[in-house]
Amino acid sequence: MRTDAPASTTAPAPGTPAEESREAGTSSETPTGPLAVPPGGADRLDVEMVSEALLGRWADTRRAARERAARPALHRPLDATVAEHRERVLGQLHLLAEEEVSLPMLPEHLGGPNDNGANVAAFEELVVADPSLQIKAGVQWGLFTSAIVQLGNEEQQRAWVPDAMSLETPGAFAMTEIGHGSDVQSLATTATYDPATEEWVLNTPIRAAWKEFLGNAALHARAATVFARLITRGVDHGVHCFYVPVRDAEGELLPGVASEDDGPKGGLNGIDNGRLAFDHVRVPRTHLLNRYGNVAADGTYTSPIESPGRRFFTMLGTLVQGRVSLDGSAIRASQLALHIAITYATQRRQFTAADPTEETVLMDYQTHLHRLLPRLAATYAGAFAHEQLLQAFDDVFSGRGDSPAAREDLETLAAALKPTSTRLALDTIQECREACGGAGFMAENQLVGLHQDLDVYATFEGDNTVLLQLVAKRLLSDYTSELRSVDRAGIGRFIAQRAEVLAKRHTPWARLGQDIADRGSPRRAFDSMRQAEFQEQLLADRARVKVEEVALALRPTARMSPADAAAEVNKHQVEMLEAARAHADLVRWRAFTAGIAAIEDEGSRAVLTDVRDLFGLTAIEDDLAWFLLSGMISAQRGRQIGTDLRRLLWRLRPHVLDLVAAFDIRPGHVRAPIALGGERERQDEAAEHARAQRASSTAPVSEKVLRDREKAARRGA
Amino acid sequence: MRTDAPASTTAPAPGTPAEESREAGTSSETPTGPLAVPPGGADRLDVEMVSEALLGRWADTRRAARERAARPALHRPLDATVAEHRERVLGQLHLLAEEEVSLPMLPEHLGGPNDNGANVAAFEELVVADPSLQIKAGVQWGLFTSAIVQLGNEEQQRAWVPDAMSLETPGAFAMTEIGHGSDVQSLATTATYDPATEEWVLNTPIRAAWKEFLGNAALHARAATVFARLITRGVDHGVHCFYVPVRDAEGELLPGVASEDDGPKGGLNGIDNGRLAFDHVRVPRTHLLNRYGNVAADGTYTSPIESPGRRFFTMLGTLVQGRVSLDGSAIRASQLALHIAITYATQRRQFTAADPTEETVLMDYQTHLHRLLPRLAATYAGAFAHEQLLQAFDDVFSGRGDSPAAREDLETLAAALKPTSTRLALDTIQECREACGGAGFMAENQLVGLHQDLDVYATFEGDNTVLLQLVAKRLLSDYTSELRSVDRAGIGRFIAQRAEVLAKRHTPWARLGQDIADRGSPRRAFDSMRQAEFQEQLLADRARVKVEEVALALRPTARMSPADAAAEVNKHQVEMLEAARAHADLVRWRAFTAGIAAIEDEGSRAVLTDVRDLFGLTAIEDDLAWFLLSGMISAQRGRQIGTDLRRLLWRLRPHVLDLVAAFDIRPGHVRAPIALGGERERQDEAAEHARAQRASSTAPVSEKVLRDREKAARRGA
Repeated sequence: MRTDAPASTTAPAPGTPAEESREAGTSSETPTGPLAVPPGGADRLDVEMVSEALLGRWADTRRAARERAARPALHRPLDATVAEHRERVLGQLHLLAEEEVSLPMLPEHLGGPNDNGANVAAFEELVVADPSLQIKAGVQWGLFTSAIVQLGNEEQQRAWVPDAMSLETPGAFAMTEIGHGSDVQSLATTATYDPATEEWVLNTPIRAAWKEFLGNAALHARAATVFARLITRGVDHGVHCFYVPVRDAEGELLPGVASEDDGPKGGLNGIDNGRLAFDHVRVPRTHLLNRYGNVAADGTYTSPIESPGRRFFTMLGTLVQGRVSLDGSAIRASQLALHIAITYATQRRQFTAADPTEETVLMDYQTHLHRLLPRLAATYAGAFAHEQLLQAFDDVFSGRGDSPAAREDLETLAAALKPTSTRLALDTIQECREACGGAGFMAENQLVGLHQDLDVYATFEGDNTVLLQLVAKRLLSDYTSELRSVDRAGIGRFIAQRAEVLAKRHTPWARLGQDIADRGSPRRAFDSMRQAEFQEQLLADRARVKVEEVALALRPTARMSPADAAAEVNKHQVEMLEAARAHADLVRWRAFTAGIAAIEDEGSRAVLTDVRDLFGLTAIEDDLAWFLLSGMISAQRGRQIGTDLRRLLWRLRPHVLDLVAAFDIRPGHVRAPIALGGERERQDEAAEHARAQRASSTAPVSEKVLRDREKAARRGA
Repeated sequence: MRTDAPASTTAPAPGTPAEESREAGTSSETPTGPLAVPPGGADRLDVEMVSEALLGRWADTRRAARERAARPALHRPLDATVAEHRERVLGQLHLLAEEEVSLPMLPEHLGGPNDNGANVAAFEELVVADPSLQIKAGVQWGLFTSAIVQLGNEEQQRAWVPDAMSLETPGAFAMTEIGHGSDVQSLATTATYDPATEEWVLNTPIRAAWKEFLGNAALHARAATVFARLITRGVDHGVHCFYVPVRDAEGELLPGVASEDDGPKGGLNGIDNGRLAFDHVRVPRTHLLNRYGNVAADGTYTSPIESPGRRFFTMLGTLVQGRVSLDGSAIRASQLALHIAITYATQRRQFTAADPTEETVLMDYQTHLHRLLPRLAATYAGAFAHEQLLQAFDDVFSGRGDSPAAREDLETLAAALKPTSTRLALDTIQECREACGGAGFMAENQLVGLHQDLDVYATFEGDNTVLLQLVAKRLLSDYTSELRSVDRAGIGRFIAQRAEVLAKRHTPWARLGQDIADRGSPRRAFDSMRQAEFQEQLLADRARVKVEEVALALRPTARMSPADAAAEVNKHQVEMLEAARAHADLVRWRAFTAGIAAIEDEGSRAVLTDVRDLFGLTAIEDDLAWFLLSGMISAQRGRQIGTDLRRLLWRLRPHVLDLVAAFDIRPGHVRAPIALGGERERQDEAAEHARAQRASSTAPVSEKVLRDREKAARRGA
């Protein structure tokens, strides 16, 4: 497959700086790494084709959004007070409103195309302009407006959506409370129905019930979608959502509404986050967004969903949009960081290594490849996985593929990928920043600002730890119901599987299979581990066995009191998170593999397969002890894997610039001088200077050279 | 040793908020974790005694410095422009100058006590006030003034040091160049001697030779200690240091001097970092700081150190002070972050787990223990290791223990610990910030600012990757010279050792020793792994074998051309870093163990031994695959270690507040509202509200409860 691949075209993607293709071209002809490119190394990435594959189903939307994100008017300031930054972002948001950037989210009856995938895709691309602008847009349209669209009736939509879309009514999404964070079910704000006046009375009984961290709440919000416990006729029907005006046209708080400013944050300072509280604030009965629960004038409560639990989770289902879009944004941010650090690393020279007359380019150091390339691979995996998530989201939200099971799958997938990609983004940005040394710490080079802004992506829209626990619970319940539903033959198969797991674990001979296949040859072991089937089986077995182990450990909880059971579950939380992460690895590996298969160019497939192997084998190496102890990997292969990974790094070295070029990060997205040719200019000038010095007869001679000559002369005498 | 430990006194350390000891007291009586405290759990940490142990040799200095760091006038602003922050920090620096904070650094003949350890200790404590102030002080006194003290003659010291100390002459330390970063030996700035005028001509020939990232350079510096290649009589004698005035009394740049502002950075924005360049700037001959190299009026060069290489490294030896002090500062910053996150985690309640009527305190979740406690343990290890480093530094710099070997050991130790502790600090701060959820992202809660400021600690004063490579090279050369010097008996011992390593690796039976000792009992395996000897041997063997493996792999380079040899070394860089990290783990483990042994109180020793075990076993678990593959750990113990670590977490749960109290983080250091009782107040109010609701007959009933009652009634009917 590799050796007969035709040399592919290598036209640079739109927006690829000329330097990049030059460097890439050079590297490909004369490999600079200590290991020559192996047979098949003539494969090249077709940058345009891979770029297209990464653009996914909403390619045109993304292209337009990338053009928008390149506009200086939308860029993050480097040095501004919180107040200045907020003003700037509010102005930018008005630009977006004028251009009707969020129109695709609206259903047909509100004048939109109901293209939720396009809406989220366009949103994601904003992260390279200014994450504050992105998240402020997310608050206004993705949360506040979306709550009215998703939870309101048509009359309510017509009344409030147009002004929300045009930014005539900036709004806050008032769900989170200080005291409860991610635990929405326990909110303490109340909305009590008063049949005498046919009004809701919104109330914040305690400090812990203040709505907290709300974008737009400190300054700009005129209204808020407020989540509160609906109480009527003495019954608490659980959390519902209400439309509540909070400021008048002059921006003054309305009677009974209190607001506090969250002040400066670690990043995203273009957003006016703040707190809101309600002291017996009254709104008309029709301000309950009543799609999933309604109260008649006399106070009678009705709902199309009988179970309070299911009703609650259905209402919260809209939150998945935030998670989907953060997943994509995090991947895009990783791409930008890698573009900057890898461009710099192919131009920056430091220390003399291989050639003592010339300093080595950073990218040719093993440590540098080792810190950046596995993250590049994970970013590719994440991008392909995100595209699958976005399509699943669009299917459900368009109504084309909406069913309770599809929604649940979508929520589980989002809960698995959002924590994975936001973690990856933070780690990647930080590694990129450090890999650029002091230059990486300069604000103009974007990496530090990106880390500051993305930081909160790990804990908002569902805390990463809480989301992974949700995934683990879902995996456990799937596993349990699978067990319950197996027929007699199925039970046999299950027992056989368990026996196999245990046998591998306790018989060293079980490991011999691999070693015999490899016949003691590292080369052959390398080839076997690069087989897609081998990687997939390992990753799939791990995901399955980790769930199984927790399930078995938790079996006794079925006979325990709720308190004891909870304590027992708490003793296995760490393993649950590991099971969820193993699941996310498998999902990403499969998405990456499917993504490669869909690309037509063979050379691109070959290079991307190396990247996929780097992703898969890194995941396996990161958990190698577990694989060894479970008997899934032999000691020989286990010892081999590190060497193989380092070999892969050198194989990929000639392709690094093509791989980042396919991200289509454009001038305007990159504003970092170190990635815009500044470094190369300096290097060229320095090389010219060194050449001139060598050619000159008047240049000083080094004392060390003189001493060496003297020594040699003495030896000669 | 554990069971007969008397209950120790538990007086809270100075500055311990009352809430903390209350909580700790409660926990200790009724353990809240799902695992009861095992026999010996009656051990308590004597907070005052452990605090004293952590204060180390310069306890009084640290106490005074902690009082200083608590003063609001020295605190970091939360929302300021770069310009405002710089002004503020300059003012604070003048305060420190007036109080002669850095006086201890001066030798007797300059009116100081030559107490370098005290000077560094005081410096480290500043990090909790404002890291910008700390680093600006470091630039002024630790680098600029110190260069004059360390590299100048007495006349030069008397001429320039007083004004440098009083801040009459703010100064820059102009070493790093844009083009060379950490590679000081390749600097391109020249200082050419002109015998006609007896002057030096300082020149920046190319853009890459601009001095870069210099604190004080953008605005405040009046002079700079400039590192440049000394050229006289046509010979380049390598890098030397020159005292060069750069601005006049009005702050205007002197002729030929150019300066650029680095602008906003990821953090430390209270410092005016910038660039400097010299266009044939002339200074008198006597401005060469001439302790290690001098030029006579006629241009003759002389030096007390013959080898240019050794001369260079001797001059650079002063840089170790920066690394030592960053090591201590990073540990202090980790302590502050842990204080904030752990205090909050013992007050913050979230979700109901064990007790369905009350939400669970964050600290009682296994995941929360798992993310914070290993970092707490590493911070303890780092603190004890730092104290050893500081004492070694003081011995050398006071002259009491100064020898080439002692200097080299000091430099290796600093090069091993500075990367380790700065990495730990960044990871710990980030984990603490995420563990506090959205509250962790608020600037007022300090964690985000701490991460932003400490970020650059990973790449300045010696890039972490470069420093670890230095360590690895030193370990390799030690290993090689050891081999060279072994006598006949020694060679036999060496061969036996190698044989043992290989035997372990290739014979599964070798592992049986451990399993037989454990006799299949997890409890016994746990006890064995907690033996100090077991941990030390594993960590020491790993450090040795990892060096040995690289040494063996690099043996062929002896017969290679320099270019081929460099390429071969480059293929083992990642392993070299791993060897250096293994060395740092061993150093920290031993320092921690020695630190515990020196504490008199048995209860404290018992608790800290658990913490030490957590540190040691975590290090082993992090590299478990390597230990398994090398045959040093049996599969049974390998499978056991995760369970054991989680058991240790619960054992330590009742002690977490005592463990952070011993850090002696005071009000004024902690300014985070979430760690100053705000959270507890809210929780108390919420609990009171819930009690009142339950007692009330008019409180609404939940729909779910009603439905459950109905169901029960129907079943009854």
